Amino acid sequence: MKIDGTPYRSVWLDPDGTSVRIIDQTRLPWALEFPRLTTLDQSIHAIRAMQVRGAPLIGAVAAFGVWLALRADPSDAALTRAAAALIAARPTAVNLAWAVRRVHDHVAPLPMYDRADAARAEAMTIADEDVAQCRAIGEHGLPLIEGCARENGRIVNILTHCNAGWLATVDWGTALAPIYCAHERGIAVHVWVDETRPRNQGASLTAWELARHGISHTVIADNAGGHLMQHGRVDLVITGTDRVTRTGDVANKIGTYLKALAAYDNDVPFWVALPSTTIDWQARDGIREIPIEERPAAEVTTITGRGMDGDVTTIRIVPKDSPAANPAFDVTPARLISGFITERGRCAASEDGLVGLFPDHA
Amino acid sequence: MKIDGTPYRSVWLDPDGTSVRIIDQTRLPWALEFPRLTTLDQSIHAIRAMQVRGAPLIGAVAAFGVWLALRADPSDAALTRAAAALIAARPTAVNLAWAVRRVHDHVAPLPMYDRADAARAEAMTIADEDVAQCRAIGEHGLPLIEGCARENGRIVNILTHCNAGWLATVDWGTALAPIYCAHERGIAVHVWVDETRPRNQGASLTAWELARHGISHTVIADNAGGHLMQHGRVDLVITGTDRVTRTGDVANKIGTYLKALAAYDNDVPFWVALPSTTIDWQARDGIREIPIEERPAAEVTTITGRGMDGDVTTIRIVPKDSPAANPAFDVTPARLISGFITERGRCAASEDGLVGLFPDHA
Repeated sequence: MKIDGTPYRSVWLDPDGTSVRIIDQTRLPWALEFPRLTTLDQSIHAIRAMQVRGAPLIGAVAAFGVWLALRADPSDAALTRAAAALIAARPTAVNLAWAVRRVHDHVAPLPMYDRADAARAEAMTIADEDVAQCRAIGEHGLPLIEGCARENGRIVNILTHCNAGWLATVDWGTALAPIYCAHERGIAVHVWVDETRPRNQGASLTAWELARHGISHTVIADNAGGHLMQHGRVDLVITGTDRVTRTGDVANKIGTYLKALAAYDNDVPFWVALPSTTIDWQARDGIREIPIEERPAAEVTTITGRGMDGDVTTIRIVPKDSPAANPAFDVTPARLISGFITERGRCAASEDGLVGLFPDHA
Repeated sequence: MKIDGTPYRSVWLDPDGTSVRIIDQTRLPWALEFPRLTTLDQSIHAIRAMQVRGAPLIGAVAAFGVWLALRADPSDAALTRAAAALIAARPTAVNLAWAVRRVHDHVAPLPMYDRADAARAEAMTIADEDVAQCRAIGEHGLPLIEGCARENGRIVNILTHCNAGWLATVDWGTALAPIYCAHERGIAVHVWVDETRPRNQGASLTAWELARHGISHTVIADNAGGHLMQHGRVDLVITGTDRVTRTGDVANKIGTYLKALAAYDNDVPFWVALPSTTIDWQARDGIREIPIEERPAAEVTTITGRGMDGDVTTIRIVPKDSPAANPAFDVTPARLISGFITERGRCAASEDGLVGLFPDHA
């Protein structure tokens, strides 16, 4: 997608042919910086420090990390060490291990002098495949927005939670992909952006990427969505997800469940966009089986922004002697979800729906 | 209630006999200051600048404001001017006009030299009545907490939204009154405090008053309540309200509706505490009839807290070219509410329930 008219991906090969560039997402929206990764250690740091985040993007950056490791040392031992270190950078992200193993398995049988180039090519393939997959999610979600536009004859108001945009993938995003597709086709869209406390990925990342691409949007407190739906001001909700059970329960950023309840109560369609790699075919009961990460209280008690002097600064917003809890995700039961948008098409939020699209998992 | 062991009200007559003291709530939780109000203008400023907020407290402070005006000038003209100026300080607060008119009507027939003393006495009566009413709400809500304690045999977890504590009234509060009563009786309670974006009254005021009184609590992002309810970690929800229709619909701080939906979905009792002055006996359909105040976007795009240098500072948390919307209240339909806790007792969230307790309005 574009930043003020210039097309970008969230990770790309530098023209120098010896390094990878990323967007430092910890600095957004206050500064746009493109750190250069030239070593394995820099790749691990970028993932661990969340300069890159979003499962698909982490996978792609880690794949390039294997290449950078092999440029310095293409030996078997170095390959094994690099793969293990990258996977350990954020052990919960499914795509990370998947992408690293894919590059590892691709280059391990090759002679040492071929490995680096082959790893680079495989990493680029992984990145390109992610773009194609997200683009396909966008195309399959587009008819939902076209339907609203046709039905209402006015701008389509879409609510989203957290950031499932191009910054979370290599390009296009998941939840935002149909919105970018609609914008490309000239359909008038407006996005209600949940700020998404406590880490504020909506206000910091989703608002930023929509503004830079030129898509109309409005930031709201997470509390506001239900009221907007009661008054007919939301036509459609689209979110991403971190894990989907085979029965259609959805784990996503904390607060998604509350929005799904409000959408259901007001007959607003609630769709979840995902690449099929997000489906956990073993899990059947999301609330009982999906472990919810409890993150540091400091994410609730402090917040970062730009001070009146222009400096980026962190302040405390909860009194010092009040503890805070910070569950990072919640589970939305399948019964509240209108359906899924995947790279193969749309389906019902149910085992029948998912297996219908992905019959290998029947 | 207590601040670190010392009993306080949120407004009181200074022992000097010529002024009123308040707690500057715009400075909480970072500084505890007791501004002295000695003039009408200072009283108006305290209300307008939200040094005092919460409908019952605003009413009491305004009543004292009439007294301060009459100390300077007890003439008919001064009385009329003072009443009009106080009512205009925050025109939407029902209790403000009610309290000012009550003092006005009480002193208007009196000779000039008696007016100031009579106004002071009437203001004190209004404050005392508010305390008694809130205390009664606490007593009538207490059995709900006692019931949970008996049933579960462990600490009772109560979730609340925004601040409907003693800081919003003269003492005790509305939603928090049953919690203070339970604490007084030695029942172990723990309060989940919604931070309550965008103005953060939960994190700034509710957490502060609970900490100072010694009540166990944990601050959470507004997104977290549904997840906690899904996992049995909330026994009871109690909120306050700004306006209740005769049919039982409840207008309260934005986000209340989302919590009511989650409570309903998880069979968690959802109670609303209110003095009967909050009931709008004319309104029947909350969503259609109650106007929702749209407040400045800056409340969403900026936030105030304590910087690492110890100074209280305001930072921007939304990119500059992203607009924000800020609806301040939402309406929770009566069907989601377990019942009301009033100064006369508890009742169903329905016309029959309310009229049963307040038969004058049948």
